[in-house]
Amino acid sequence: MKGVILTINPHSQIVDITHEIPPQDIRTAAFALLAAYNSFGPGTINVIVVDPGVGSSRRPILVEASSRFFVGPDNGVFSYIYEREPEHRVFELQAEKYFRHPVSKTFQGRDLFAPVAAYLSLGTSPDKFGEPAVDCVRLPALHPTPLKSGRIDARIIHVDRFGNCITNLTRDDLTVEMIRAGATLKINGIAIKVFKEYFAEESSSKEKVFAIWGSTGFLEIAARNRSAAKILKCKLHQTLVVHLPKFAAH
Amino acid sequence: MKGVILTINPHSQIVDITHEIPPQDIRTAAFALLAAYNSFGPGTINVIVVDPGVGSSRRPILVEASSRFFVGPDNGVFSYIYEREPEHRVFELQAEKYFRHPVSKTFQGRDLFAPVAAYLSLGTSPDKFGEPAVDCVRLPALHPTPLKSGRIDARIIHVDRFGNCITNLTRDDLTVEMIRAGATLKINGIAIKVFKEYFAEESSSKEKVFAIWGSTGFLEIAARNRSAAKILKCKLHQTLVVHLPKFAAH
Amino acid sequence: MKGVILTINPHSQIVDITHEIPPQDIRTAAFALLAAYNSFGPGTINVIVVDPGVGSSRRPILVEASSRFFVGPDNGVFSYIYEREPEHRVFELQAEKYFRHPVSKTFQGRDLFAPVAAYLSLGTSPDKFGEPAVDCVRLPALHPTPLKSGRIDARIIHVDRFGNCITNLTRDDLTVEMIRAGATLKINGIAIKVFKEYFAEESSSKEKVFAIWGSTGFLEIAARNRSAAKILKCKLHQTLVVHLPKFAAH
Repeated sequence: MKGVILTINPHSQIVDITHEIPPQDIRTAAFALLAAYNSFGPGTINVIVVDPGVGSSRRPILVEASSRFFVGPDNGVFSYIYEREPEHRVFELQAEKYFRHPVSKTFQGRDLFAPVAAYLSLGTSPDKFGEPAVDCVRLPALHPTPLKSGRIDARIIHVDRFGNCITNLTRDDLTVEMIRAGATLKINGIAIKVFKEYFAEESSSKEKVFAIWGSTGFLEIAARNRSAAKILKCKLHQTLVVHLPKFAAH
Repeated sequence: MKGVILTINPHSQIVDITHEIPPQDIRTAAFALLAAYNSFGPGTINVIVVDPGVGSSRRPILVEASSRFFVGPDNGVFSYIYEREPEHRVFELQAEKYFRHPVSKTFQGRDLFAPVAAYLSLGTSPDKFGEPAVDCVRLPALHPTPLKSGRIDARIIHVDRFGNCITNLTRDDLTVEMIRAGATLKINGIAIKVFKEYFAEESSSKEKVFAIWGSTGFLEIAARNRSAAKILKCKLHQTLVVHLPKFAAH
Repeated sequence: MKGVILTINPHSQIVDITHEIPPQDIRTAAFALLAAYNSFGPGTINVIVVDPGVGSSRRPILVEASSRFFVGPDNGVFSYIYEREPEHRVFELQAEKYFRHPVSKTFQGRDLFAPVAAYLSLGTSPDKFGEPAVDCVRLPALHPTPLKSGRIDARIIHVDRFGNCITNLTRDDLTVEMIRAGATLKINGIAIKVFKEYFAEESSSKEKVFAIWGSTGFLEIAARNRSAAKILKCKLHQTLVVHLPKFAAH
């Protein structure tokens, strides 16, 4: 893919976001994209090839959002971009003159997404690549359920290489007021009541596992210099619950 | 190595093809190079450091083929380039003024291959680095045996991270006519008769494993969203057979 | 981090040294930096994010040494740079105008180190980022104990992906004279008496494991095309001893 891009635009600057998405895991890819896209400047072209449906009838698409571009399969991998950037446009990749030929049936990354990204980087207008696409595939919404009967149902959206478990809870879902009122996380039968400011914060209590606001804006469950995922036997995409007894009436 | 290259030519554009070749596996490295070299444009300099014989008497060499350069050890890693590009030239790396000094005995990648690649990128002519080299080391040919008594003996030349098993069969070895006449692959006692166009193609039959033409031009054995290598207990470099009863007389 | 750097300085050339430091392993990170920094030219800015104490009171710092810069946490990761480059200057990162805001409590790599590195690459003077820092954290010295009573106490400072075990012994610690006089390495009860020049050197003896001067200037324990670490059951940071009976009186 890099060879194809550099052949079309030798001046392109290519950065690998990650090559560690588990095979076919669209949700993890969608989260990785969400965590990274905002740290790259306007004009950045994001290319995604997590694509269990390659070669089937699923469409190749191009998304324009937040002055950035996103090129990849219409399989839900851009769901969180749609959710965060309601002002987006989507085009189906149809104009074969921008493809690498012959187009392989099994590697659209090299033959469609890479050359389209390269032509975008040269200034080709997004509407040149095809017609607007509607009814794009969407994953279940990133947001947890709203507070009801004193509980919020949330889930783990990423487990990082240190074993930190990132939840889908933001500061809008779980407010300072709720935390002060004694919010408790419950995951796999274990209750977590400690909310820390820093990974390395000193503490007199004996807790092994704590919650902390992470760098992507989500609440993370962590353990100091240990893997919270191992301690909690926590799996990617599993559920957790926030209990808020005092907010039961809301 | 990148530091050495960028110190000599700060404007060079460096791309990692892969860092996942198993230690000392020359055949896998040779395949990775074959799969990638053609997607990078003319003038590209490929550097390879898969080198179980580093420091021994095996020669450091430079290959010019297809308007591209290949720098690395004469241990067979360029075999498939020689096979695909009969119009190639090979030079031994002898001119010490292009080396990084002192030359380490155990890391020629940094001290020979990297600086030579950097000087090539600055326009130094390949014949400046040393004399033409003959009798270069070659791996067994990539091609399968020709059809004989209704069978072709082939082998697995790569197993990718998804568990797809890439064979050494091309469309020239296994023609459309043969497939239509009922070609059957046999590997570890399991027969594979289904040839698909796409990974995600729908099928009414119950087959788990199927054959498909891959993006590198070779026939691959795959399983939809599963590892064919696990299902077949398939190992890198092992053999498989194509049975073609109707072609027995050819 | 790369997005932050490229947003501030789109012309920066970014190279990954490694992403394979075990979580929180400051000593391995310090060694990786030592092995690489000299191969990159003057003006290079090294950014390190191995940081078990992120968010605690440990200081973010900037080191200037050998016409290069080093940006990261004051947790000892720059110890070997201080040791090799006595003429160094250290500044604490205090000037918030060079930070990315809001500053995350858990990812200073993105919000402090990356933007500071980018501003350094644009020519900002190191003393603009904060006051000189003193009493920086240092790991135990890299050097082995000096020769005493015929022995040197050394340790394993890195185990590479091939299983080579890199010691902290240099040619100054273990001289040619000592090797000629019959120096023996002892590790986990196994004696190593063979010193080779090349990994692939032929040998008539049956030894499996040998010592060799590696590309970073340290003595390595290796096995031809096998993992010395597995054979020796050798662990990172463990001790080994050099026995030099004839030098007992020195």
